[in-house]
Amino acid sequence: MAEAHFLESFFNPRSVAIVGLSRKAVGAPVSVLSTLMDYGYAGKVVLVNPNLPPWDGVQVFPDIAAIDCPIDLVVVSLPRRAVPAALRQCAAKRFLNVIVITQGFADADEVGRRLQAEITAIKDQAGIRILGPNTIGTANAFAPFTTSFFEMQAEKTPSGLIAQSGLFLMGHYGIGNVSAGYGMAVDIGNGCDAGLVDALEFYERQEVIRVVQCHLESVENGRAFMEAAARVSRKKPVIVLKAGRSEAGQSAAASHSGAAAGEAQLYAAAFAKAGIVTAHSAEEMRMLSKAFCSLPLPQGKRVAVFSFSGGGAVLAIDALEDEGLELAELSPSTLEKIQAYFPDWMAAHNPLDVWMAVTAGDFHSIYPELLDLALQDSNVNAVLAIYASLSLPKHQAFDVSRHLPALASKHPRKPILGWSYGLDVQGMTKRLERDGNLMVFPSLEDAARTLRKMHDYARHTAQAARPVLVPRPVDHAKARTVLEKAQQEQRRHLFAEAFAVLEAYGFRTAPWMVAADRRQLQKQAPALGYPVAAKMMSQDVIHKSDVGGVRLGIANAKELLSCFDRMAERAAGQGTKLDGLFVQEMVTGGQEIILGAKNDPVFGPALVLGAGGLYTELLDDFAFAIAPIDEAEAAAMIDNLRFAKVLKGTRGQPACDLDAIEDMAMRLSQLICDFPEIAELDVNPVLAQADGAVAVDARIMLGEWANFQPS
Amino acid sequence: MAEAHFLESFFNPRSVAIVGLSRKAVGAPVSVLSTLMDYGYAGKVVLVNPNLPPWDGVQVFPDIAAIDCPIDLVVVSLPRRAVPAALRQCAAKRFLNVIVITQGFADADEVGRRLQAEITAIKDQAGIRILGPNTIGTANAFAPFTTSFFEMQAEKTPSGLIAQSGLFLMGHYGIGNVSAGYGMAVDIGNGCDAGLVDALEFYERQEVIRVVQCHLESVENGRAFMEAAARVSRKKPVIVLKAGRSEAGQSAAASHSGAAAGEAQLYAAAFAKAGIVTAHSAEEMRMLSKAFCSLPLPQGKRVAVFSFSGGGAVLAIDALEDEGLELAELSPSTLEKIQAYFPDWMAAHNPLDVWMAVTAGDFHSIYPELLDLALQDSNVNAVLAIYASLSLPKHQAFDVSRHLPALASKHPRKPILGWSYGLDVQGMTKRLERDGNLMVFPSLEDAARTLRKMHDYARHTAQAARPVLVPRPVDHAKARTVLEKAQQEQRRHLFAEAFAVLEAYGFRTAPWMVAADRRQLQKQAPALGYPVAAKMMSQDVIHKSDVGGVRLGIANAKELLSCFDRMAERAAGQGTKLDGLFVQEMVTGGQEIILGAKNDPVFGPALVLGAGGLYTELLDDFAFAIAPIDEAEAAAMIDNLRFAKVLKGTRGQPACDLDAIEDMAMRLSQLICDFPEIAELDVNPVLAQADGAVAVDARIMLGEWANFQPS
Repeated sequence: MAEAHFLESFFNPRSVAIVGLSRKAVGAPVSVLSTLMDYGYAGKVVLVNPNLPPWDGVQVFPDIAAIDCPIDLVVVSLPRRAVPAALRQCAAKRFLNVIVITQGFADADEVGRRLQAEITAIKDQAGIRILGPNTIGTANAFAPFTTSFFEMQAEKTPSGLIAQSGLFLMGHYGIGNVSAGYGMAVDIGNGCDAGLVDALEFYERQEVIRVVQCHLESVENGRAFMEAAARVSRKKPVIVLKAGRSEAGQSAAASHSGAAAGEAQLYAAAFAKAGIVTAHSAEEMRMLSKAFCSLPLPQGKRVAVFSFSGGGAVLAIDALEDEGLELAELSPSTLEKIQAYFPDWMAAHNPLDVWMAVTAGDFHSIYPELLDLALQDSNVNAVLAIYASLSLPKHQAFDVSRHLPALASKHPRKPILGWSYGLDVQGMTKRLERDGNLMVFPSLEDAARTLRKMHDYARHTAQAARPVLVPRPVDHAKARTVLEKAQQEQRRHLFAEAFAVLEAYGFRTAPWMVAADRRQLQKQAPALGYPVAAKMMSQDVIHKSDVGGVRLGIANAKELLSCFDRMAERAAGQGTKLDGLFVQEMVTGGQEIILGAKNDPVFGPALVLGAGGLYTELLDDFAFAIAPIDEAEAAAMIDNLRFAKVLKGTRGQPACDLDAIEDMAMRLSQLICDFPEIAELDVNPVLAQADGAVAVDARIMLGEWANFQPS
Repeated sequence: MAEAHFLESFFNPRSVAIVGLSRKAVGAPVSVLSTLMDYGYAGKVVLVNPNLPPWDGVQVFPDIAAIDCPIDLVVVSLPRRAVPAALRQCAAKRFLNVIVITQGFADADEVGRRLQAEITAIKDQAGIRILGPNTIGTANAFAPFTTSFFEMQAEKTPSGLIAQSGLFLMGHYGIGNVSAGYGMAVDIGNGCDAGLVDALEFYERQEVIRVVQCHLESVENGRAFMEAAARVSRKKPVIVLKAGRSEAGQSAAASHSGAAAGEAQLYAAAFAKAGIVTAHSAEEMRMLSKAFCSLPLPQGKRVAVFSFSGGGAVLAIDALEDEGLELAELSPSTLEKIQAYFPDWMAAHNPLDVWMAVTAGDFHSIYPELLDLALQDSNVNAVLAIYASLSLPKHQAFDVSRHLPALASKHPRKPILGWSYGLDVQGMTKRLERDGNLMVFPSLEDAARTLRKMHDYARHTAQAARPVLVPRPVDHAKARTVLEKAQQEQRRHLFAEAFAVLEAYGFRTAPWMVAADRRQLQKQAPALGYPVAAKMMSQDVIHKSDVGGVRLGIANAKELLSCFDRMAERAAGQGTKLDGLFVQEMVTGGQEIILGAKNDPVFGPALVLGAGGLYTELLDDFAFAIAPIDEAEAAAMIDNLRFAKVLKGTRGQPACDLDAIEDMAMRLSQLICDFPEIAELDVNPVLAQADGAVAVDARIMLGEWANFQPS
């Protein structure tokens, strides 16, 4: 058997010491101790408080040092200034698992940040593992055990929750249905030690946990999170609610530069790559978790709508189409059998408006017979059942809850999603969901969106894991030489060298040359293919066009030389050093695109592809990906652009060479992965032509030396 | 006092005859009769059935003719073939108000359509008013009276429902909260007589109805609906759920032609113009109705978030920003007062994370004090309160329902929106909403979207009604002459004449001429400004470019004449009649836009403005409006385009003359309103230049003669 995960002691300790409960809190109805007792914890509990007499049979020690028995887990809710001393006492006693509930650390002010650094140092030295600070801790209905001060319900729902806020633990109670809520939960809090990845790996090992739901506000090591999530999501769905979209809104403006990927887009790209199921709200996370716990994965996107109401069926079609799901086309033999139940004047077809049929005779035999026919049809992957709410006992004449759970068991590969307009009064939903094998949704839109996300997840897991990427043959050594020289010379903004690096990685570039001085230019100018563009080279100037350092459409060698003279003159006048002139043949034809890469502090190497030129601003059309990417991912980046319409040829314009764009994206992916010292790399524009793609302009920004990761 | 609305007898009859209840249905728990009795109806009820003995004290007649008392309303649920005879009996007795519940008319097959025509003829002749067929009828909690066969709850909620499906009446029960559901409802069914507009006008007069909610699948006379809704929505909000979006999806492709407005877009444009509040789902319609019943209209979009949880506050900000709402900036004096309750290390700011503050002392004094401070701040227009669900009696220590309704009364102009994560177990929501002056939402996203829609409605009603539009001076007679001549000649596709009509309405066009034959061309050709474009004119050919009938970039008179010769030759070879050559100077420069108009069968004169040229397909960027439009509406059409970025000047391109585009849109609006015989009119492209806008190509399609409406 594998070694137990260190979080095991945080979820399932045999003994607990609660440190810092005040005299008032001990007796309070809402406290760590009373919740733990009410939750049914059967292990040993001791309290630590110098001012407390023995309380209700629980042993009390004046301090941690005085504890005379082994303790699996210490739960600390002392004032923040007292926490370091408590941790030192834990270290002395070799109590190595500690939850720090106390707020006011890195979540608060400078004093708090220093205190958090202090406890981090103590734990590192002593080998203590900490959950928190600023956490509600854990809950585990299977133990049962919890450190929450707010009431918990010990429902053994096969879903494990990870949250960066106590909110999701506080809201647990009341989700009484077996498939709702979660059976285990952890609040990561400030995460000075145990973090998202640890929690993911813990749930990965728990056989009782079939679904993971994760609320996160930020990730420190995005790459490690992605890798863990990608691995876990092949075994069980990982649902993520990313909070704090609004920050991303602010950085959206910056995303117009290819390399400056907005945070929200990188998160989305990382989630997609890892096969994560994304939730847009707290409620959707809970709903998705419940759906994955209750419903089988759909084998396709064809849905039969089985409705008491024609009006409801129309609303259902809207909802299905909004999500790209399809109305199943029932087979002729199914339709023939169903038609026998329908009035003559009403043609049976999907959506099935069954009210007349099911009330024409014995409801309790016709309803299940008809629905069974629909479920038997191999063209049907899922059923959306629209029925009437049961509001009075006399409505039992139309009680579908007598039939739906049985039909769900009979067809275990076909999800049944229920909806009725209006609220649930008589426990109808609970009766329908009693066997945990179907689910009632608060709206048709929720049902359709959930089914679509389950379908997407099913498709993701059905794909074979991607094979290890075979790198393209490139001249890595040449690129390294160029970059190392720039580093030695402490230059961060590379321009001509960017072309050299791209060429080493197999990019086609517009022909270019660098003339260090007038004599060199004079010698080389006649051999150029005109028109050319010229750009001044100067380490003093980043934005060349602002100082007149760019000239396009130079028609011949004479113009080129006089351009050099003017720039030299201007540079001299401004006191900037002219390092030379960059001259490049002007390429025309094709569509402008932007290709960019960056080494993101959270996610590492990442890529962006976008519409170029005038379209950049107009379309705001970018596709993001986490590197490395394979052919399929490169193709998906193109497909994710609205601009793909143009690239694929439209209104008489020829199609661009998509293979060349994909190849360039993959080479860029390889480059940014090979050189973490590249902070940002822009190839803007690339001209995508009918035959190939040409890098017309490029720029590399090297990172701060201190930030280098080993490559 | 105004004459009573004819629907009064359908909502509040003094006496009712129920015709067609079978022996079995009379005694059934779910039937029109038992529902009516359970609902508490106090008027007179008689039954009509030849096979029924007197039943439970209710008088029974063998047929309608035998009824010996006055009857306000007859409710018919006979088999469909028996309905015409019953209506004739009603006519004979002068029972002039009839609800036909029976299905299987125009909703079904050809037989049903004929039967519906038959009953429509009977009612017209006899002066009978009909609701239905295929309807559940009405419900009126204020009477109380209902014809629904499914149980109804007689809650006097000040909301009136109009539906085109029984679904919304069936789902009523169980919305026990006073502010949910509706107090009156009508199912329009097939609407052979009483329709949406009648129902709107009925609710307009009802003082007890403060909100109207309307489910619709289609409108027959969109213009009448718009006008009624616009008038009513100035007095009370009209919330509309449009079902059947999916049809619109199919017609979306057609919207690439300027004049072929997609149905969904026209509905949306009509709703916007009428000040209608739109709902996207059945649940949203109910939620909006409840919100308008319970909450005051916000005076602005600045929201204070008052939260037990920091994590919840982050989610709230996401939700607010998604809807374009703002976090209120609390005034320094408010912040100073609030800070006094906060721990030192925690700076008070909006969002207010109040858990530490409200639990540091006496919760039940601190919580209301703090929230009152936030509500007093004049920078705050609304409060989003995030609290913990009450799941156990002991949680009453944190029971915010003791305070929120009182604070809502104290601040009657500031909506309070509540949310807690998790389900409502202990009736918390009901307690919070007990005074009907605040509202708990199922999600933060729902709360934010609802508040934004209330804010938009408040802004709409705050605007003065638009003044009557002063028409621009145009040469109406000239346009009429051109169009009448075409009609006399039975020509429907107008091309050169379209230019003449546009010029009569003050459009600037690219200079053009028509040469009927070679001699005329030869005479006029030298005077043209080259290059020119030439197009063959032939009533036999609609798509000129398909048959080589278009030639661009003709450089001089000689080329023009040889172009004419080639077209004449080709036409002769194809056996098509060449009516002449249309020659037009080629205008260049500026941005291509599309301007279109149509006389829509549902909404009448309507307009579309879109990005032109390559952008048409790429951006799929159109703005729709119902004519006539004023300056503000024309400006809004431009602003609704993503292409507005380009029109306003971007990346060094000059701005286009927006005034000229607006002027052109308003002239087109005037034209399409003046001539209902124009089915469609495309001006594509218009070149929007820095100084003015030029119609470069145009086309008019005249409608079917039979479809003419009087102008």
